[in-house]
Amino acid sequence: MSRFDDELPLRRHVDGGVTTLTMQRPRQFNALSEAMLEALGRELERLAEDDDVRCVVLAAEGRAFCAGHDLKQMRATPDEAYYRDLFARCGTVMQRIVTLPVPVIARVQGLATAAGCQLVASCDLAVAARSARFAVSGINVGLFCSTPAVALSRTIGRKRALEMLFTGEFIDADRALDWGLVNRVADDDALDDALGELTAAICAKSAVALHTGKALFQRQLQQPLDEAYCLAGDTMAANMMAEDVTEGIDAFIEKRTPQWRHR
Amino acid sequence: MSRFDDELPLRRHVDGGVTTLTMQRPRQFNALSEAMLEALGRELERLAEDDDVRCVVLAAEGRAFCAGHDLKQMRATPDEAYYRDLFARCGTVMQRIVTLPVPVIARVQGLATAAGCQLVASCDLAVAARSARFAVSGINVGLFCSTPAVALSRTIGRKRALEMLFTGEFIDADRALDWGLVNRVADDDALDDALGELTAAICAKSAVALHTGKALFQRQLQQPLDEAYCLAGDTMAANMMAEDVTEGIDAFIEKRTPQWRHR
Amino acid sequence: MSRFDDELPLRRHVDGGVTTLTMQRPRQFNALSEAMLEALGRELERLAEDDDVRCVVLAAEGRAFCAGHDLKQMRATPDEAYYRDLFARCGTVMQRIVTLPVPVIARVQGLATAAGCQLVASCDLAVAARSARFAVSGINVGLFCSTPAVALSRTIGRKRALEMLFTGEFIDADRALDWGLVNRVADDDALDDALGELTAAICAKSAVALHTGKALFQRQLQQPLDEAYCLAGDTMAANMMAEDVTEGIDAFIEKRTPQWRHR
Repeated sequence: MSRFDDELPLRRHVDGGVTTLTMQRPRQFNALSEAMLEALGRELERLAEDDDVRCVVLAAEGRAFCAGHDLKQMRATPDEAYYRDLFARCGTVMQRIVTLPVPVIARVQGLATAAGCQLVASCDLAVAARSARFAVSGINVGLFCSTPAVALSRTIGRKRALEMLFTGEFIDADRALDWGLVNRVADDDALDDALGELTAAICAKSAVALHTGKALFQRQLQQPLDEAYCLAGDTMAANMMAEDVTEGIDAFIEKRTPQWRHR
Repeated sequence: MSRFDDELPLRRHVDGGVTTLTMQRPRQFNALSEAMLEALGRELERLAEDDDVRCVVLAAEGRAFCAGHDLKQMRATPDEAYYRDLFARCGTVMQRIVTLPVPVIARVQGLATAAGCQLVASCDLAVAARSARFAVSGINVGLFCSTPAVALSRTIGRKRALEMLFTGEFIDADRALDWGLVNRVADDDALDDALGELTAAICAKSAVALHTGKALFQRQLQQPLDEAYCLAGDTMAANMMAEDVTEGIDAFIEKRTPQWRHR
Repeated sequence: MSRFDDELPLRRHVDGGVTTLTMQRPRQFNALSEAMLEALGRELERLAEDDDVRCVVLAAEGRAFCAGHDLKQMRATPDEAYYRDLFARCGTVMQRIVTLPVPVIARVQGLATAAGCQLVASCDLAVAARSARFAVSGINVGLFCSTPAVALSRTIGRKRALEMLFTGEFIDADRALDWGLVNRVADDDALDDALGELTAAICAKSAVALHTGKALFQRQLQQPLDEAYCLAGDTMAANMMAEDVTEGIDAFIEKRTPQWRHR
């Protein structure tokens, strides 16, 4: 099982427009080892070029979603340049989630801690089992969750992010929902139903609209209001020229389901 | 009725310090046609120079607040340059709400979708009927709500904005309240009472303070913390020199209602 | 009592890693007089160099936390240059809370209004008595709370901040909790227990981690995502080299309480 883990830390499953990436190092709580980070980075890079994908689900096997970095592996190379490179690679993975042309949904059960919580915050959407728990707990071992803070502070309110970061304490799924860290909470045995509703809703959309939207949303967030409106207006004008919009408006007027051109 | 709609898409009503702009194309769900956008832009430009106004209410006739752009009108001119210009004009209207010297309050009943939801997000405050529903539903016709995303992503949490934008699904008034998209929810037949409480509270304030505050709030939001404090401190120092503040503090000390100079 | 107030507007109390600064002008509702601002600024500057402090509590004596600026004192010098200087000094105090190397927690009972509400918003964390009430009420005397708006608009949602600023109305502790202005609400007689839980949790952390985290959190907030990740990654790599992390991870693996080096 250990060799299997090393060789295949991540499983890819394609079902229609939904590609599910499942972290499968359950015994290590799906820690973001170098192999896991590399696999995630490679898959996300590949998916960025995949015209058939409508949304990506980031899932995990076992009792934990992801417990963050692999502390034992990190301790084995006590070198600042190595760590700098490691965190840069991790930051690249997180930013690939943000820049991926289609929505990325976290499917969260059990623990999501440190960089595992950062994964949840970095995804566009998140569905959690009621038993899921979230923490940025690095501070408990003397290591402030600096990179998770980047994603978390952009997702939930400032004082809530600071409380999680300074105390390292867990919040449960209902609190995560209340704070906007996840979009939906379902009973553990209904988690895939809740996820399925969300992926079905997204897969019914036009690929042009999804791609347009994801890219625009993330870019305009970093701009002042007037520049954001310029970008968004030009983006929407270009979107209007897509064949899918002609079909979409026709279908809307005719009260029928649109047939998107690009699959 | 159709001619009436075309000629007078917007009605202006002045009651003391409150100017109400009512969109009155109910049969078109108050769609933001070119005529409606032009009327809104013109009225907001005029109100920016109106020394008597204390707050502006943006209201709508009929069963919907506003269903966004006029898709039929848009489809009639399938030209990217035309769309670019159209969205630029719409962005100008939204930014005029933001830069208007006094608070703008959305009065929302029924549907507020796409650019209609953007109007709600762009207003400083919003009061909704319990039956109101909100969506950025362009994605259902293949057109991602890019310009609404600019306003929405600055008003509610990021994952919530993304869920609305990617699924196109409705949220009800209570959820809009919980997420901070609206300030107050009232039973449908008590909507104007709730609105009246808010406008009365604002009309009791000094015009100098309202003007100062609206401009400062929007500008400092786009600045780093130290620059924001410089601007806010200088703004507040200038505000202190207004006669209204002398009167306001005297009235406060003497436990009486202040008599503002500028009406 | 009046002389005492003037001479000692602020009391410092050290208990282990917790330094409590208590505003003690209860009869003036702990107004931020020049003397109070100077004392706060001086203490915060001193604490920034104090290697023994783990967290700072900002507390207040009497029935109010803080009622903002001292209006009577301000009225005595009706000079714009004086006001500009005064607000600049106040802004410096608020920014010292933000840049202090360790977490600052507001302990709030009774009223927190205008710059008093700004103090709460500026602190990293806040614990409130159930009887606490919050407002940015300057607008009631013709003076828009421009500098409080800087802190408030970065802490709670935009429409909620605007409602508080334009109406001047109070929100209670439960609403402040719901909106993210405070982290915890406790019955009045249990306020210090709730505060004690939070300070104990923070004092159990490594000083290196607390210092690293506070500085990183505030800086990365003002950066675009890619720069924020660069800074956070390098910060975390440096943090990894601290002896405390070696000890923290060892303790974690050995399931024991870590013994931090730096006290």
